[in-house]
Amino acid sequence: MALSPVRVTVWNEFRHERENKEVARIYPDGMHVAIARYLEAVDGFTTRTATLDQPEHGLTKQVLAQTDTLVWWGHIAHDSVSDAVAERVQQAVLAGMGLIVLHSGHGSKPFKRLLGTNCSLRWREANERERLWNLAPGHEITRGIGDYIELPAAEMYGERFDIPEPDKLIFLSWFQGGEVFRSGCVWERGNGRIFYFKPGHETYPVFAHQDVLRVIANAARWARRKIDRHTLDHPNIRKPLEKIG
Amino acid sequence: MALSPVRVTVWNEFRHERENKEVARIYPDGMHVAIARYLEAVDGFTTRTATLDQPEHGLTKQVLAQTDTLVWWGHIAHDSVSDAVAERVQQAVLAGMGLIVLHSGHGSKPFKRLLGTNCSLRWREANERERLWNLAPGHEITRGIGDYIELPAAEMYGERFDIPEPDKLIFLSWFQGGEVFRSGCVWERGNGRIFYFKPGHETYPVFAHQDVLRVIANAARWARRKIDRHTLDHPNIRKPLEKIG
Amino acid sequence: MALSPVRVTVWNEFRHERENKEVARIYPDGMHVAIARYLEAVDGFTTRTATLDQPEHGLTKQVLAQTDTLVWWGHIAHDSVSDAVAERVQQAVLAGMGLIVLHSGHGSKPFKRLLGTNCSLRWREANERERLWNLAPGHEITRGIGDYIELPAAEMYGERFDIPEPDKLIFLSWFQGGEVFRSGCVWERGNGRIFYFKPGHETYPVFAHQDVLRVIANAARWARRKIDRHTLDHPNIRKPLEKIG
Amino acid sequence: MALSPVRVTVWNEFRHERENKEVARIYPDGMHVAIARYLEAVDGFTTRTATLDQPEHGLTKQVLAQTDTLVWWGHIAHDSVSDAVAERVQQAVLAGMGLIVLHSGHGSKPFKRLLGTNCSLRWREANERERLWNLAPGHEITRGIGDYIELPAAEMYGERFDIPEPDKLIFLSWFQGGEVFRSGCVWERGNGRIFYFKPGHETYPVFAHQDVLRVIANAARWARRKIDRHTLDHPNIRKPLEKIG
Repeated sequence: MALSPVRVTVWNEFRHERENKEVARIYPDGMHVAIARYLEAVDGFTTRTATLDQPEHGLTKQVLAQTDTLVWWGHIAHDSVSDAVAERVQQAVLAGMGLIVLHSGHGSKPFKRLLGTNCSLRWREANERERLWNLAPGHEITRGIGDYIELPAAEMYGERFDIPEPDKLIFLSWFQGGEVFRSGCVWERGNGRIFYFKPGHETYPVFAHQDVLRVIANAARWARRKIDRHTLDHPNIRKPLEKIG
Repeated sequence: MALSPVRVTVWNEFRHERENKEVARIYPDGMHVAIARYLEAVDGFTTRTATLDQPEHGLTKQVLAQTDTLVWWGHIAHDSVSDAVAERVQQAVLAGMGLIVLHSGHGSKPFKRLLGTNCSLRWREANERERLWNLAPGHEITRGIGDYIELPAAEMYGERFDIPEPDKLIFLSWFQGGEVFRSGCVWERGNGRIFYFKPGHETYPVFAHQDVLRVIANAARWARRKIDRHTLDHPNIRKPLEKIG
Repeated sequence: MALSPVRVTVWNEFRHERENKEVARIYPDGMHVAIARYLEAVDGFTTRTATLDQPEHGLTKQVLAQTDTLVWWGHIAHDSVSDAVAERVQQAVLAGMGLIVLHSGHGSKPFKRLLGTNCSLRWREANERERLWNLAPGHEITRGIGDYIELPAAEMYGERFDIPEPDKLIFLSWFQGGEVFRSGCVWERGNGRIFYFKPGHETYPVFAHQDVLRVIANAARWARRKIDRHTLDHPNIRKPLEKIG
Repeated sequence: MALSPVRVTVWNEFRHERENKEVARIYPDGMHVAIARYLEAVDGFTTRTATLDQPEHGLTKQVLAQTDTLVWWGHIAHDSVSDAVAERVQQAVLAGMGLIVLHSGHGSKPFKRLLGTNCSLRWREANERERLWNLAPGHEITRGIGDYIELPAAEMYGERFDIPEPDKLIFLSWFQGGEVFRSGCVWERGNGRIFYFKPGHETYPVFAHQDVLRVIANAARWARRKIDRHTLDHPNIRKPLEKIG
């Protein structure tokens, strides 16, 4: 039953880091590299990265076929992701690939296509404190996490978050300014698993926070592909298993 | 608390009835009219119908705005439904309109967009017996229905049905040929309610079966719009409710 | 389809009001009477009340048989409720009666029996502000309620609340002291519906808050009995519906 | 991340095997031993067994503390299980232990306590064919299982099965006599995981069927304890995390 290493592809829009000095200072190589390094170093995952401006956004059929879990960070350029690639990602998840959507990725094409809702929410940038309460201490995703994760400065995301009722609520956020948010949610779609995780604003060093990185690593393992079977076929079963009439 | 009459729009592809004599014999005015007549006569709903070949498939913004529950039957021409109308229906549901998807409508654009999966299944046309077991005797949708509904001749739809786990399973079908199927399922998306109901093959007089009609009427009432609020906005809440810092 | 008036029984432990002057001042006739009066006056429900110190705690078989929705408030005397009555309430819910459990009723015998978990939580009495965010604007329970309900002074209830994942999350609370709480949750069990609603501490005039009363009334209507069929039978179906062998 | 071997305790009522020659012939050492042997030999689990007639039914606090997953088979002597041990099992699950309930265990005390419903169903003993359709090909529990498991002769269990809506439906059964049944269901309660699996009638050699044994082994791994934390405490958090007032 020994499992092979988890193959994670970290996808990043990679625009903020090249256009904004503050972000570049925090993530000189991009957020994708910061996340991938942790996954390699600490958990022994096999990682690769992909970004928006690569051909096919770095997400060719072959890359997805070799990906057990895809991590997605996008924000200002959701519309620049082609419909073809968005659908390819959707079908890869339905066939069994895991998907972790971070922060502003709630507005990304693959996430909205898979959930079917608008995934809208309230937001505010005011350097406020966020506390993510751990609602699922027995779940693989919260392994090693205590009662809550505290982020000293975060963007506020508030309800109502327009998502289908999650299969299970993992984290619930409190914000200093008075809002709450379902900040860690899991769903299963087709043969694949999806985890949405709220932390990750580009101007706070969130992807250096050990608890945040730990959750991403745990989730990458939990969501890893267990099967590779697309769900597009619609077979006509001419011969019944039992005698009719 | 007296509620106004439920306004139901019954949408039909309306191709089989015009192209196939057998179907035309069973439904001389189309399946949409057969269903709408029942809803008017027995339950006092206010109904209208709409079909694929009308301008905008009969589903203008105004029609949807005046619809509490939309009933959808489609089969051979799913691709002929424009993306614009499919998205309009999706947004209407997310804003609060109810949606009842019948039979082969599992492959329709609005249904697949709202659920995010491929909604594929196995099938067979062999005139076999189907028995829909009632799993939710306390639910509004099964009001007046006994332990099961029996259809003497039906098309087989079999698992695995590629859908998100339903919020609640209402009917579960047994087929003579050896398969099972989740034949009555509900989901909530955005502010709206969705019911998928398996009966409805065009060459069997299913929409004359009193239990089938009763379920559609019950579901139209259950799913009726309770609110009209779109979920597209993404407001920046600059002024927090509580003092920060 | 005109429904008869909803018959609500409001059950109260009714100890605080007789032992604590502050509580007696707020609720001279008891919390049950305050709630029942609102339900009668505003929504036209048929109400009765029952309390712990009545014979069989006021919940005879006949009373439950004539109850569409039972509202439950208990706190310091959960253990004084007899197992026989707790089981009777459990079976009544499974047979179709609605149940609304308020505030400290999370620790009551009927609630814990129906959910199967310990329903434990964190708490604090510090006169802090609570804001219940409305996550389900399209649901019957939130009819007439805006984006949130604000309680100027409330007891804190915090996660992790040891409950089964709710069928749907209706309210999510923010507390001034830093916690969050799933403060409005629904579940279906057997043929019945259950709503847990967090507001209701005895020393705050919560049951005079119009939004709180509105939610209780809405929930009483939503949860009302739709069927009366117990789920204890275990029938041996000797004669199969289909031929075997 | 290498996990230690899963410690499984297989509990059996162990009455049929000693009282009925036919059962004794199929399971000379008892069903518990047949299952435990497979788990040891094929999956390398660490196993122990326990039976009703041992002191404390073999389920002392120490045994449960050293159990990652408990497998439960009971039928004619549910009432002979003491309430104390039933509650101990319930609390062990809520603290993180996995529980697999087989066949007639649907009527057992621990199962009914954890689910809160009566878990009643229809049944028939008529040597009929059962086909368990695999609804979750991407789930750990169905690893190595094809589209369905076929049992040539089985007891019929039919809907309506009085259970809370499962978190996920894993298997759905078809019966020759015309019924359907949710034959593989998972729930999470507290910090623990529960799997109900329908196969297992004592007079059919079901626990020699390789697919049935494979599912039990998969489920024992999936449900294994991930944490050991009871959920009984109800802490008063006197010092808030944030300043109040």
